[in-house]
Amino acid sequence: MLKLYSFGPGANSLKPMLTLFEKFMLGTGFTVHQLDPRKFEHHADWFKAINPRGQVPALDDGGLIITESTVICEYLEDAHPTSVKLRPASHYDVAQMRCWTKWVDEYFCWCVSTIGWHRHVSTMVRNLSDTEFEDAVARIPIFEQKVKWRRAREGFPQDLLDEEMRKIAFSVRKLDDHLADNEWLAGGVYSLADICNYSVAGSMHLGFSELVNTEDTPHLVRWIGQIAARPAVVEMFARVPREF
Amino acid sequence: MLKLYSFGPGANSLKPMLTLFEKFMLGTGFTVHQLDPRKFEHHADWFKAINPRGQVPALDDGGLIITESTVICEYLEDAHPTSVKLRPASHYDVAQMRCWTKWVDEYFCWCVSTIGWHRHVSTMVRNLSDTEFEDAVARIPIFEQKVKWRRAREGFPQDLLDEEMRKIAFSVRKLDDHLADNEWLAGGVYSLADICNYSVAGSMHLGFSELVNTEDTPHLVRWIGQIAARPAVVEMFARVPREF
Repeated sequence: MLKLYSFGPGANSLKPMLTLFEKFMLGTGFTVHQLDPRKFEHHADWFKAINPRGQVPALDDGGLIITESTVICEYLEDAHPTSVKLRPASHYDVAQMRCWTKWVDEYFCWCVSTIGWHRHVSTMVRNLSDTEFEDAVARIPIFEQKVKWRRAREGFPQDLLDEEMRKIAFSVRKLDDHLADNEWLAGGVYSLADICNYSVAGSMHLGFSELVNTEDTPHLVRWIGQIAARPAVVEMFARVPREF
Repeated sequence: MLKLYSFGPGANSLKPMLTLFEKFMLGTGFTVHQLDPRKFEHHADWFKAINPRGQVPALDDGGLIITESTVICEYLEDAHPTSVKLRPASHYDVAQMRCWTKWVDEYFCWCVSTIGWHRHVSTMVRNLSDTEFEDAVARIPIFEQKVKWRRAREGFPQDLLDEEMRKIAFSVRKLDDHLADNEWLAGGVYSLADICNYSVAGSMHLGFSELVNTEDTPHLVRWIGQIAARPAVVEMFARVPREF
C-alpha cells in the first residue's frame, strides 16, 4: 500500500494527491497521512526521520521513501502503471510535459509561493512568541527555509513582492496564451503538466482574481474549470480536508 | 540524424553532449552545430526560430525541437535507447536520479552560473559600447536574462556574490558527503544524475580549487576523475572545441 505524507490539497502536496486520485481509489490503492503545517509537524523528528529535508509531500512505497512532488508523480507513473496514463503517448510530448513541470518547479511555484507566504504564513508566524519562533526555526533543516521564515515574520520587502507579482502576471499570460490553442498543456491529453500547473494555478481565479478571470484569461479559466470538474478531482476535494 | 545546437562543452550544453557521446558516435548518430556565445548567435533570429527562448542546448530530432538540457537528456533515453543505459534499472533509483538532476537545475547550476558570469561574461559585455550592448540586450527574449546581462555589465552586488559562494560551498559539501558512500550519485551506476552534476562540477577543482581539492573533497575529486577518464568523455573533449 502506498502512503502519502502530505499537507492538505494545495501547492506541492496537491501534485501527488491529484495523481494518486486519478490512478487509484483512496483506501484501496493508497492512504494519506496528513500533517498539520500550523503545528510544524513536517519539522518534527519523526517526520525528519522519513524525509531529512523536513518537506512534504513524501511517498512511502513499501518502506522506500520518494521525495520531491514532481519526482513522486513521475515515479507513480513508472512504478505503478494503471489504465490511467498521466504522461502523453509520444516521447516528444513527454518532453513538452517535462518542460511544463520543470517550469512550475523553477519559476511559477516560487512567485506564487512568496505571495502565499506573505498573505498566510506571515500572520501565522507573527502570532508566535520570540521563543516559540526561534524554537520552530531551529527545527527547520534547510537554510533557505529558515531565511524564508524570518522574512515572513519580518515582512517581505515590497520590491520583492512587486517582482513576484510581475512574475505571476507573466506566468498567467503564458498559460492563457498556450491554452488558447490547446485543450491541455502537453500532447492533447490531461497529463502531469496539467496536474503540476493546476496545483499552483487552480485557485488563482479566487486568490488572484485581478489577473485570472473570464475577461483577461478566458482559456486559463476554462482549463481550471475542466480540471476541477474531473471526477477524481471532485472526489479528492471531498475526501481530503484543507487546512486554511 | 540528431542535431544538437550547443555552446562548447560546459554547463547546460555539456549535459546532452555527454549523453550523446555515451550513446552514439559523433557523425554517425548525431551532429553538433556549435553556436558562438561571443557573437550572441543564440539570440539571432535564425536560432530564435528554432528555440524562441534563445537558449542552447536545443535538439533537432527529424524536425522536432526539444529544449531544456535535462529534458533533452531524458528524451534521448526515452526516444533513442541504445545498449548504453543512462538511467538506473529500478524505479526507485530513477526517482533518486531525478532528485539529483532537479537539484542541479533548481539550485546548484544557478550559484555556479552567477560566479561564472561574474568572472567571464562581465568582461565580455563590458567590452561592448553602449549601443552594441543595448542592441544585444534588445535581442534577448527572456526578461530575467536581460536583467542578468545588465547586472553582469554593472557588476553583480557583493552580497549576491557572497550568497552564491555560500551556496556553492554547501553544494560541494553535499556532493562530497554523498560520494563518500557511493561510487555514483544514484543507483550504483553512471547515470544522468552524474552527467548533469558533472556538467556543473566537472572543472571546479580548477575554478574553485579552494573548495574542491583532494584534502577537503576527496570523494568529489575522485568522482570527477572517474568521469573525466570515461572513453566517451575523453572523446568528447577531444572532438568538441571549448570557447574560452
